[in-house]
Amino acid sequence: MTVPRYTPLAQSLPATVPFVGPETQERHRGSTFAARLGANENVFGPSPRAIEAMQTATTDVWMYGDPENHELRHALAAHHDVTPDHIVVGEGIDGLLGYLVRLLVGPGDAVVTSDGAYPTFNYHVTGFGGVLHKVPYLDDREDPARLFAKAAEVDAKLVYLANPDNPMGTWHSGADLLAAMDALPEGCLLVLDEAYVECAPEGTAIEAHPDDPRLIRMRTFSKVYGMAGARVGYGLGAPGMISAFNKVRNHFGMNRVAQAGALAALADSEWLDHVRDEIATARDRIAEIARSHGLTPVPSATNFVALDCDSDGAFAKAVLDNLISLGIFVRMPFSVPQNRCIRVSCGTAADLDAFEAALPKALDAARR
Amino acid sequence: MTVPRYTPLAQSLPATVPFVGPETQERHRGSTFAARLGANENVFGPSPRAIEAMQTATTDVWMYGDPENHELRHALAAHHDVTPDHIVVGEGIDGLLGYLVRLLVGPGDAVVTSDGAYPTFNYHVTGFGGVLHKVPYLDDREDPARLFAKAAEVDAKLVYLANPDNPMGTWHSGADLLAAMDALPEGCLLVLDEAYVECAPEGTAIEAHPDDPRLIRMRTFSKVYGMAGARVGYGLGAPGMISAFNKVRNHFGMNRVAQAGALAALADSEWLDHVRDEIATARDRIAEIARSHGLTPVPSATNFVALDCDSDGAFAKAVLDNLISLGIFVRMPFSVPQNRCIRVSCGTAADLDAFEAALPKALDAARR
Repeated sequence: MTVPRYTPLAQSLPATVPFVGPETQERHRGSTFAARLGANENVFGPSPRAIEAMQTATTDVWMYGDPENHELRHALAAHHDVTPDHIVVGEGIDGLLGYLVRLLVGPGDAVVTSDGAYPTFNYHVTGFGGVLHKVPYLDDREDPARLFAKAAEVDAKLVYLANPDNPMGTWHSGADLLAAMDALPEGCLLVLDEAYVECAPEGTAIEAHPDDPRLIRMRTFSKVYGMAGARVGYGLGAPGMISAFNKVRNHFGMNRVAQAGALAALADSEWLDHVRDEIATARDRIAEIARSHGLTPVPSATNFVALDCDSDGAFAKAVLDNLISLGIFVRMPFSVPQNRCIRVSCGTAADLDAFEAALPKALDAARR
Repeated sequence: MTVPRYTPLAQSLPATVPFVGPETQERHRGSTFAARLGANENVFGPSPRAIEAMQTATTDVWMYGDPENHELRHALAAHHDVTPDHIVVGEGIDGLLGYLVRLLVGPGDAVVTSDGAYPTFNYHVTGFGGVLHKVPYLDDREDPARLFAKAAEVDAKLVYLANPDNPMGTWHSGADLLAAMDALPEGCLLVLDEAYVECAPEGTAIEAHPDDPRLIRMRTFSKVYGMAGARVGYGLGAPGMISAFNKVRNHFGMNRVAQAGALAALADSEWLDHVRDEIATARDRIAEIARSHGLTPVPSATNFVALDCDSDGAFAKAVLDNLISLGIFVRMPFSVPQNRCIRVSCGTAADLDAFEAALPKALDAARR
């Protein structure tokens, strides 16, 4: 008998995972990227008030953070016009998705997502023994009708939908989604990932009743709030479901400095407006660069743009690899047919200058 | 059929958990504590270099942290004279214990710990459906021989031992533990929590072979390194077991600012020596205050002292409640017979002045 004796589930899980960070690639390259445009981070950064709050809070880092996230939950409740009992704060949406899957999904349980949607959700589902059922995108958008029909077909406990979508950047109106939820089967929870919704057009965020038991919404400070490295996400849902997180979450898991930063970031709506403008400008520029080199930008409600390379996945992968060789960190969708695209996050003018200089070379080399 | 449909395990878990932070108590009291001596935090704080590193890193917080924790793992490897493959970095020991339990423990699996030892470990075991078997302390120390005998008796997959111990502060020599491990049954992994070992006497840290498959050691930046609010812990173990964490951990879960802080903290051994001195001084003073009011300090190798109130749990609880009413945040062991004690963390001179002023009042009121 050898130790450790892993669970059968743990033994069955793949030893390698698709989470390769840009730092790993930089170490393999032996040099840093000239432009970091692959992880949908927000180079425009957090509110200066958030940075100041975090710098101040570093001297308090000897204390654990408040396990109730009281101040942040109260501020978020006011922001969303709900009660603090409608909000759970956690270690990024990734952490919260892990807790959610753990609460609902055991070995053999059915879960539905789109083919090519957020891989970390799939990682959690597989990690708890769930069985993933995938439906295709429709015209580069996630397809709520088909997702919910599949959920009914396989008796899913959980269905994942990102709005706006990652990696394509496309979106539905919140009203359309709410209407589509009429077809959500009984006993199935919709986890609606709204990570990018703060830079989407008005009306993209769903306006469900806060006590609607069919739905949990995920939000984050990682994207438009510019704090990916802080690991602060939150879930919005009916109080009964929200309180269930207390059964499994890492109660003292929140970084105290991050709590202070998120609180300050939330209060600075002017900075958020500034970032939205920067994102819109960068999005337009990425689209323009793409068009001027024969690529087709997919309309985006996020802080990135999927660029249709008008060929197959192998070609897009060649373009991507060439860009990376040229010092431009970008990523691409995993699945057919979205993998005909590369995905470029919004950057500074200098970042996009570097991208503009590299793209024709990357395309030429891929076409040869 | 209602939503969400929780797993049977999730349904069975208690809705309330014992993780009440001092902030919660302060909100109930309506005022802040005069001295925060309950959570074994390190009021002497992190290295000024760590604070500076964190403050600098806040401007990079728009980026995710390196999912491989490459720099920190390499620095820790050098520090411990092992390879980076012997080290997994995670969101505090609490986070790592959760991953470890998840890897090993499924419904019905046996796990052994001491009655009154670290409750967060128990929380994780219960949370994954494991069955806890507890053995008593022996003379206020955890009892390796009995732990390992119980592990053999119940065919445990995992046994927990903290050295030094929390909440009693007592300890074993590393050599004694290593010898005791001869009785660790086949197929049982020892998780050795060394959270406090940096302030324990020379020889307390176990000197096992780094590839020993029977053992994983847990370390943290939360205690002597003074960064509880940063959530940085690490596990030391055989590479095969360490790599298994990659199957389940939250790969982008580490706070980037905390990574930078931990790296700087590790490099400042002078500050660590300074903190050790401060802790030793505070420990002596807590013991002296206790003795001068008729209490017996339990010898401690940690940054706290258990004070034997020489009565039962109800009396110690009354002392504790009185101290809290007087603005002194302290905690106490949960289990008989350790719950005849209150547990006082090291504090500044001012903190301990406040404790000294409050203690006789708290004792008088409890005795009345």
